[in-house]
Amino acid sequence: MQNSVSRANLQRVLAPKSVAVVGASASPDKAGYQALAALERFGGDIYPVNPKADQILGHKAYASLQAIGKPVDLVILAVPAAACVQAMREAIACKCGGGLIVSGGFAESGEEGAAIQRQLGELCQASGFRLLGPNTAGFVNMNISLSATFVAGREHLTKGNVAVVAQSSGINFTITFLIARYGLGVSCAIGVGNAIDVDVSDILEFLAEDPGTDAIALHLEAIPTGRRLHDTLRKVTPKKPVVAMVVGRQDIGEFAQSHTGNLVGSYELKVNALRQAGAVVVGSTDEVAAAVRVLSLQRMPPKANPGVGVLTGQGGAGLIMLDWLKEANVSVPEFGPATASKISALLPPMTYLKNPVDTARPGPTFPQVLTTIGADKDIDVVIVYALHEPATLLPETFFADVKKAMGKPLLFGTGGPESELRPTIAKMRGDGLFVAESPEKLAQAAIVLVQDSVAQWKLAQPAAPVAIQKAPRTKGGIDEDASKALLNAIGIATPQRFACSTREEALAAFRQLPKPVVAKILTNEIAHKTEAGGVHLKLADEAAFLKAIDALDRIPLKGQRRYLVEAMAAPGLELIVGVLRDASFGPTIMVGMGGTTAEAIKDTATRMGPVTLAEAHEMLNSLRAGALLDGWRGSPKVSRDALATAIVRLSHVLVDQPDIKELEINPLRVYPDGVLALDALIV
Amino acid sequence: MQNSVSRANLQRVLAPKSVAVVGASASPDKAGYQALAALERFGGDIYPVNPKADQILGHKAYASLQAIGKPVDLVILAVPAAACVQAMREAIACKCGGGLIVSGGFAESGEEGAAIQRQLGELCQASGFRLLGPNTAGFVNMNISLSATFVAGREHLTKGNVAVVAQSSGINFTITFLIARYGLGVSCAIGVGNAIDVDVSDILEFLAEDPGTDAIALHLEAIPTGRRLHDTLRKVTPKKPVVAMVVGRQDIGEFAQSHTGNLVGSYELKVNALRQAGAVVVGSTDEVAAAVRVLSLQRMPPKANPGVGVLTGQGGAGLIMLDWLKEANVSVPEFGPATASKISALLPPMTYLKNPVDTARPGPTFPQVLTTIGADKDIDVVIVYALHEPATLLPETFFADVKKAMGKPLLFGTGGPESELRPTIAKMRGDGLFVAESPEKLAQAAIVLVQDSVAQWKLAQPAAPVAIQKAPRTKGGIDEDASKALLNAIGIATPQRFACSTREEALAAFRQLPKPVVAKILTNEIAHKTEAGGVHLKLADEAAFLKAIDALDRIPLKGQRRYLVEAMAAPGLELIVGVLRDASFGPTIMVGMGGTTAEAIKDTATRMGPVTLAEAHEMLNSLRAGALLDGWRGSPKVSRDALATAIVRLSHVLVDQPDIKELEINPLRVYPDGVLALDALIV
Repeated sequence: MQNSVSRANLQRVLAPKSVAVVGASASPDKAGYQALAALERFGGDIYPVNPKADQILGHKAYASLQAIGKPVDLVILAVPAAACVQAMREAIACKCGGGLIVSGGFAESGEEGAAIQRQLGELCQASGFRLLGPNTAGFVNMNISLSATFVAGREHLTKGNVAVVAQSSGINFTITFLIARYGLGVSCAIGVGNAIDVDVSDILEFLAEDPGTDAIALHLEAIPTGRRLHDTLRKVTPKKPVVAMVVGRQDIGEFAQSHTGNLVGSYELKVNALRQAGAVVVGSTDEVAAAVRVLSLQRMPPKANPGVGVLTGQGGAGLIMLDWLKEANVSVPEFGPATASKISALLPPMTYLKNPVDTARPGPTFPQVLTTIGADKDIDVVIVYALHEPATLLPETFFADVKKAMGKPLLFGTGGPESELRPTIAKMRGDGLFVAESPEKLAQAAIVLVQDSVAQWKLAQPAAPVAIQKAPRTKGGIDEDASKALLNAIGIATPQRFACSTREEALAAFRQLPKPVVAKILTNEIAHKTEAGGVHLKLADEAAFLKAIDALDRIPLKGQRRYLVEAMAAPGLELIVGVLRDASFGPTIMVGMGGTTAEAIKDTATRMGPVTLAEAHEMLNSLRAGALLDGWRGSPKVSRDALATAIVRLSHVLVDQPDIKELEINPLRVYPDGVLALDALIV
Repeated sequence: MQNSVSRANLQRVLAPKSVAVVGASASPDKAGYQALAALERFGGDIYPVNPKADQILGHKAYASLQAIGKPVDLVILAVPAAACVQAMREAIACKCGGGLIVSGGFAESGEEGAAIQRQLGELCQASGFRLLGPNTAGFVNMNISLSATFVAGREHLTKGNVAVVAQSSGINFTITFLIARYGLGVSCAIGVGNAIDVDVSDILEFLAEDPGTDAIALHLEAIPTGRRLHDTLRKVTPKKPVVAMVVGRQDIGEFAQSHTGNLVGSYELKVNALRQAGAVVVGSTDEVAAAVRVLSLQRMPPKANPGVGVLTGQGGAGLIMLDWLKEANVSVPEFGPATASKISALLPPMTYLKNPVDTARPGPTFPQVLTTIGADKDIDVVIVYALHEPATLLPETFFADVKKAMGKPLLFGTGGPESELRPTIAKMRGDGLFVAESPEKLAQAAIVLVQDSVAQWKLAQPAAPVAIQKAPRTKGGIDEDASKALLNAIGIATPQRFACSTREEALAAFRQLPKPVVAKILTNEIAHKTEAGGVHLKLADEAAFLKAIDALDRIPLKGQRRYLVEAMAAPGLELIVGVLRDASFGPTIMVGMGGTTAEAIKDTATRMGPVTLAEAHEMLNSLRAGALLDGWRGSPKVSRDALATAIVRLSHVLVDQPDIKELEINPLRVYPDGVLALDALIV
């Protein structure tokens, strides 16, 4: 229920003014005690609910939610699974905002728990009451000093501008503590657990409006409502950067099922859908923490291809960083003559000046070199690595000033003995500077800033300049001719063809078409026409043609026998393009190279549909055998534009045509001047 | 010069009993002062050399090396590049062991420096004097409290059992300080710099015998003598684990050239050659430090496919670890009924028991669960992740005991507030336990142990059970017939063929062969026979055959005209197999799938030759389109054994045949019962 009540209630749950603990207890080993104790710093109203107590932990206790006498924003349900339904009914009756279930014993534990979980979900749906969990360790909202969790160590968390949202509650705190390692606090850290009501998308919507949050870390396992997540992220990422990780590169099905549900869907589609929505996707909790850290400090303006300037005190570190940046396809532009000559005036002649700049041992001109690099118009972010050498370089004394003057992100990386390094790093981090502790982590931070910038640039691009014709509605069981008519209607060419009901029509078609022609059986009774002898190629003369029609007539059919007579397409490179309605992400589009080798290596690219022209080109760029498109060993260079345009047009079909579940063009033959769909299958 | 003098001198350089500093100075800003000052903890004899001083930093100064009156083991040359040649001549005359040049200004800085560098190299070659550098910041040998470096922070380094060897001196200390972050000391940390004499292989040989070193971290950029490095590592890794990183996944040529030389050769070949020699290869300085840390604590016995047991307090962390282990192709075997039933008796019913074991919140039975997992015969290493919850789990109180009783590696990972975690981690690390600070780093540590174990298992395998026939010597410019004769001689089949000098011989050959046949022009004058009209296929009758011979006769040739008449091979899947003499690694072998798509995606595997049968199978397994070998869409499953055998045989050719630079079979057609080389080119 996405109405204003449920939205307001979500706000009440995550940023409550009052909290009740149902099942509050005075026994320290009970969850109801720990949940109440965790609220110790919360500044709002606190109501223990326990019919057998007068006072718990210094708070007046109430016999029931009703007895409190006013609607509480957040109700923490510290009662067994079986008691939750009744408690929630009472909370709803009292017009409470929502609840948090910290206990387990729901869908992850078997059929009985699943039944309770379903009931809770239905109660939420019907009432607008918002429920977080079950199967979560809760959340913290440091903006209001709220610990709605009893995870150990919560009392050490500090307030900061990064929010963490995680499907798994354990990973919520794993990431939160990793972030804290950088001396960084969190605004909120929220694990959604089984997410029967409040899910990741809800939390993201809340955080988009949370003034305490500047950057968001996101951990995902299953993504049951991918389309909604994508749409939400697309609205959130232009406001606040989002760094995401998705578990499930490999099939880890059975264990995953036991955890918070199955990891449905392809990892590639999930990652690409998140990227299409402007998120930066990384691979591990460590990388999430480091990436959200750098993005919480600064964001680069959207740009198609930002440039990184690299300054290094050690050549070996420069090599490593350059290697990583190039591997990530990030630009490290060679300096123009103006910048190069300024730098060469500042450094001894032996050093390398073109980008990376290798100063050998850092000297007194280091800050000026830095400023010069930062002033280059092709440079959007500057990274600097230098081993800790306090005798020659004290980065903590000038980095903040240089960065401010530069007006561009300036990231530092260093190494050295921990005892000496710690004060330097602490000072620099205190000044809002990013400090990495290895060359690779420094390069990775720049890559994250660039990826965020490029993603936002892509989101801001105007819609593709491709004319989209709305696909006509079709009815079930359409044959090859009708499929091709649909393709023609949306602007995808097919070979010239005639659908013929009689031999005479077929012969007339043959006479009219350029030779050679192809004769196919036209029916929905046969799935694999070629195997059934239903396709005859290279028919150049009437005798051969009529022989082919004879053969088609021998195929046993129950219904009407028709023929599809087509001009035979010129040879060319073949691809496969298909659209499919995914259970989670809705319309998706796939393009792949044709042929058995490409099929064996799964050389495909998948995106949520519809895609823009730029996204279609990106899909083609990501094909491993994509070089074949550009004229391989003497074959002609085909039109990537025509191919991308066809992808864009096809990607709109499922959006316009709710009846179609799946459409595959196999093969799509590509030429220097266009494309031809040789066969098409619609489900 | 790899004789006993130079080996003894290397020992004197790296583990000296006496050190002289030529150019020693009393001015603190001079390198000659810093080099001397750095020796402060060294227990051996120290000799400042400076004709103008009587005493420096409390040591008696000498006018020259000669004046010391006895041969010094290590001479530190703290003089400008131009003065190094003379200083080295004197050191050689005095029978010193070797020298260390800490200054720059050699090959990396231009022609003049390169000339000096060449002279130094020649002096070493001629005398057996060993030189470390130039272009290195030196080294430390903590076994003897020697700091032959003035890198900042060296005074904080502690003695430990890990050695670092790096091509780049900066990365030498980057890695050393990262290792120190784990509370771990080093035995030696050595940067080789320009490596005109002492190179990485020399250092590895030294470390293999160093009693203070249990594990080795290796950083590589260019690998100019790959064959020697491989041969050295093959001897070192069975004694001590080696973790390596190689810079240069991307082309970073010009900057690399300015650093320590060009990054020649393919990244893939370098990595595979290191793995063939038993090293564990990782991607970053952070990973090197973490990997060498875990291997310095324990090594698993060699095994073909070790199993990892996973215990987690948080389901989300279990998912991540499982994902990473599977991605690395590491086995996480499901427990047998005995283990499963023991575990189920120890844990609440809601938890997952099959591996990973998910205990939900850790409880008092945690140690027993751990012991039970460790006792499973299929489990070779156990990893445990649990957020820091001192109220329910104090890993520092029982992990060391459980590990000891288990007799298998037991690795721990955790997260929590740093101030609480630090004492726990420090205690556990002090007990010799591995502690990771994220689920991914924990999984990665297990992967490293497994990779080391598998690599050593492979090294220990007996030679492949493949009969190797020595290839006969050939003379320059051999034609297709001779090439195929060589293949036949080493046991690789080709189609039945006749080399014919006359039309009559050709016709007789046609009559004798099964039909159809192929007729080719047999000459070395034409590089691309097909393009020149020199190949005629599918000749089934005499008329067609003679017409083909007519066509071959029309090809203009200067020399003798011969014909190759062959039985035409049955259709089948095609691969390319080639051997090539690499400038650095010597004989190498490549196998790839045939066809344009495979070529476009560079679907190839490369190894140093000769390879074992197991390595040949591994090469096939690594082909992305390898599924085509196993019967794709109705095509027959081909014999991987026959293919692997052919690869092994071919990989021996360059070893046996010094005259051959390159041999390529293209295509090698593969069948369910064998292979046929359809064409072969020898250079």
